[in-house]
Amino acid sequence: MTKALTLQALAAELGLELRGAGVACTLSGIATLASAGPTDLSFYHNPRYSADLRNTRAAAVILRPEYAADCPVACLLTDNPYLAYARASQLFSPKVVATGNVHPSATIDPAATLAPDVSVAANVVIAAGVVIGAGSVISANCVIGEGSSIGKYCLLHPHVTVYAGVRLGERCIVHAAAVLGSDGFGFAKAGGRYHKIAQLGGISIGDDVEIGAGTSIDRGALDDTVIGNGVKIDNQVQIAHNVRVGDNSVICGCSAIAGSSVIGKNCTIAGAVGVINHVSICDNVTVTAMSLVSQDITEPGVYSSGTGLDTTGNWRRNIVRFRQLDDLWRRLLRLEKRGGGQH
Amino acid sequence: MTKALTLQALAAELGLELRGAGVACTLSGIATLASAGPTDLSFYHNPRYSADLRNTRAAAVILRPEYAADCPVACLLTDNPYLAYARASQLFSPKVVATGNVHPSATIDPAATLAPDVSVAANVVIAAGVVIGAGSVISANCVIGEGSSIGKYCLLHPHVTVYAGVRLGERCIVHAAAVLGSDGFGFAKAGGRYHKIAQLGGISIGDDVEIGAGTSIDRGALDDTVIGNGVKIDNQVQIAHNVRVGDNSVICGCSAIAGSSVIGKNCTIAGAVGVINHVSICDNVTVTAMSLVSQDITEPGVYSSGTGLDTTGNWRRNIVRFRQLDDLWRRLLRLEKRGGGQH
Amino acid sequence: MTKALTLQALAAELGLELRGAGVACTLSGIATLASAGPTDLSFYHNPRYSADLRNTRAAAVILRPEYAADCPVACLLTDNPYLAYARASQLFSPKVVATGNVHPSATIDPAATLAPDVSVAANVVIAAGVVIGAGSVISANCVIGEGSSIGKYCLLHPHVTVYAGVRLGERCIVHAAAVLGSDGFGFAKAGGRYHKIAQLGGISIGDDVEIGAGTSIDRGALDDTVIGNGVKIDNQVQIAHNVRVGDNSVICGCSAIAGSSVIGKNCTIAGAVGVINHVSICDNVTVTAMSLVSQDITEPGVYSSGTGLDTTGNWRRNIVRFRQLDDLWRRLLRLEKRGGGQH
Repeated sequence: MTKALTLQALAAELGLELRGAGVACTLSGIATLASAGPTDLSFYHNPRYSADLRNTRAAAVILRPEYAADCPVACLLTDNPYLAYARASQLFSPKVVATGNVHPSATIDPAATLAPDVSVAANVVIAAGVVIGAGSVISANCVIGEGSSIGKYCLLHPHVTVYAGVRLGERCIVHAAAVLGSDGFGFAKAGGRYHKIAQLGGISIGDDVEIGAGTSIDRGALDDTVIGNGVKIDNQVQIAHNVRVGDNSVICGCSAIAGSSVIGKNCTIAGAVGVINHVSICDNVTVTAMSLVSQDITEPGVYSSGTGLDTTGNWRRNIVRFRQLDDLWRRLLRLEKRGGGQH
Repeated sequence: MTKALTLQALAAELGLELRGAGVACTLSGIATLASAGPTDLSFYHNPRYSADLRNTRAAAVILRPEYAADCPVACLLTDNPYLAYARASQLFSPKVVATGNVHPSATIDPAATLAPDVSVAANVVIAAGVVIGAGSVISANCVIGEGSSIGKYCLLHPHVTVYAGVRLGERCIVHAAAVLGSDGFGFAKAGGRYHKIAQLGGISIGDDVEIGAGTSIDRGALDDTVIGNGVKIDNQVQIAHNVRVGDNSVICGCSAIAGSSVIGKNCTIAGAVGVINHVSICDNVTVTAMSLVSQDITEPGVYSSGTGLDTTGNWRRNIVRFRQLDDLWRRLLRLEKRGGGQH
Repeated sequence: MTKALTLQALAAELGLELRGAGVACTLSGIATLASAGPTDLSFYHNPRYSADLRNTRAAAVILRPEYAADCPVACLLTDNPYLAYARASQLFSPKVVATGNVHPSATIDPAATLAPDVSVAANVVIAAGVVIGAGSVISANCVIGEGSSIGKYCLLHPHVTVYAGVRLGERCIVHAAAVLGSDGFGFAKAGGRYHKIAQLGGISIGDDVEIGAGTSIDRGALDDTVIGNGVKIDNQVQIAHNVRVGDNSVICGCSAIAGSSVIGKNCTIAGAVGVINHVSICDNVTVTAMSLVSQDITEPGVYSSGTGLDTTGNWRRNIVRFRQLDDLWRRLLRLEKRGGGQH
């Protein structure tokens, strides 16, 4: 997918010590230890794969110095092999570079302001007052609404919708079919029906944010919905109006964060988690997959809800008992009392 | 975002009594009690914010007459402040008005029938037999399939897909990337593989329905999937084939309603709820967040499933015990019996 | 929606024995037993509807020979009425046929290779190196990235995004707003922030696969994400990087499969199920709605997690007890011990 790279050039680029490289080798890609061939780079960061390390046919392996002796091929030494792998992966990835090309089928309002090198692909629609910073790439069929701003070096994949009043920072990546700025879900009930509350706020998204495919982030009712710097959001996540997500937090696929809830900094929200509205989660919290956060979390730590998987036969018997759990407790207490309560 | 409005004009527009306004004040927007400045309107409907009320710097506050004495600024009096806020919010929201403009890049089949004032934005594709009522606005990059109809005063945001055979009522709002009319998920298994069942029904959607970003509603297998009047559906909701949702029900974000299930009128389905197929929920039911409805609900009320959030350490111990819950019950019964069963 | 079909022609087409048809009847559609009129075909495969069968006004009913005596109208006899219904439904469905028409607004790179009869609708964007097989139909506003390939007789509905490096087999159907090939969610954490791992793999999708509206499938980190032949995926499913789904498995709406997990052949993953990362599910497994698969499943069977639905009042009492479940067990064991342990 990209230009060839010698092992020596890679070591220099990543600033890593290269050990045991017999001859100049030109790398063609990255692969796992087990599947790498003689022109592939690989990496070792999990002891589970120690047998794969000893048998690898890779051109070179990124690893910690203490494992160099186990490696039958050239080594690139680092204390953080996973980070070095991340950096190396970027070198083998086709670069998306802003060229200043604007496809003739794009519809750009004369009152929009695009840096000269911004790339605009086919069928993109950009409204009045939009500002797009240098180095940004807007892929095919994106729509950007009135007055929104997109910082420098952003990449919008195809079919992204940005409503009016959205501010996106620098170096953000937005994946296909994501929606930024849809109306928050707000209604006043009266007379048996719902009256729409106009959503007058916008969205403020920091720098270095990645937003997954099909994810939706609603605009605020009055103030903005706020996504901090360095936040990473996976696919199909729903973030409701006036949510605030702190810097460097991660939200995995299919999670739903309801209105006005606050997620602190450096949190990890696993996949398919629900957070009800008006809840506050402090910094450094991890919530495991498919848990429901229905109350404030005020202490850092790891939190869960739900039950473990079981065969449906066993599970059916147990869920019947779950419905009687309070009764079971009361009967146990009665038995204890009858027994003298000497526990 | 909109034209200025005097406090007096606002009071007249909403039909509310204005009290304590010293001078003619021009309002610039709406804000919370705490953040409102001297040209902002605010509202008070939750006693939790009584301190904010006493300290507000807003131009005026919408509230119940009994709280007027606590308000340091002008008051707009009403028995339903939240409804009055909803109505006021519309006055401060930029109006989307049908202008009759049809962007030259739109592709409209000659056999489609659009009212003269319908607005059609760039790259919209409208197939043969489509009918769109007066006052409707079709935003950029929407696609509307053969023979579908859209009532008067509807707003389709960008990237909405309407398949063939979908009927949308009047005054509906459909948010970006929503999909109306995709095939229901129906297959006949034979010979170890699945044979597709053509989905021959359509969708019938009532008046005053709002549909969130990324929400999908499948067409019926034989009859239509039916969404009643006044139904509000949040983002990323999945509604399967032949579901029927009664008037004025609300379905919050990321909920999934499986095939042929029926939701009554005036129900509230909270976020990330699942409803299995062929289930019937009566009128006036609320289901709390992330619950699974796996059986009919025949009595109005509030329903839940799942467990509460806990630290993962405690939770792990308890889910082990959940797998043994039926055993625990049997052992308790045995103990009770041994004790003479005198509970 | 389609051309008329006589009952005799239908019987011949499906290879079924026709019994009791008085006169040549022209069929106009398919309907349920209860709603079918005198020109509708119907089918009977569930004993629950035996009363409907006896009272049906359909032109003819597809059913098993042993029920022919209960049918007041003409019968089409088969051992698998549901399969025969599936096949009949295709005859009444409007066919989407590739015509070779390419809409003038489509943007097709000269270095793409399309079979002569491929249909390309308005605003489609096809990049260099794309290959599309004979008989395929690309609907309005789809975007297909560099070097991806689409097999013969595929149908892409509107607004589908195919990133670069995706291979789709033959006879696949992809519904609106689906995203194939978005980046897997991979980051290396260092210095308190996340460093993106370029996702260098692609997606490999087999033949006869159906993918629902709004579903997203991420590209692999190094190797491909793999979807087997005959797999059916419903709406709003999220499939993460390097997941492998075996042949003829079904994944229902809103399920989320996390990275590197493996689903075997002939599995049924019901709606809103979560599968955590690096989990392996063997062949012939069913997971019921909203369950979380948090460990390997090595035996075929049916699996569940969660609790049953209850009134919120009861449920609240029970979830308090769930948090104390391990304590309850220990106290029960103490009571048993005190009682002599003679159970």
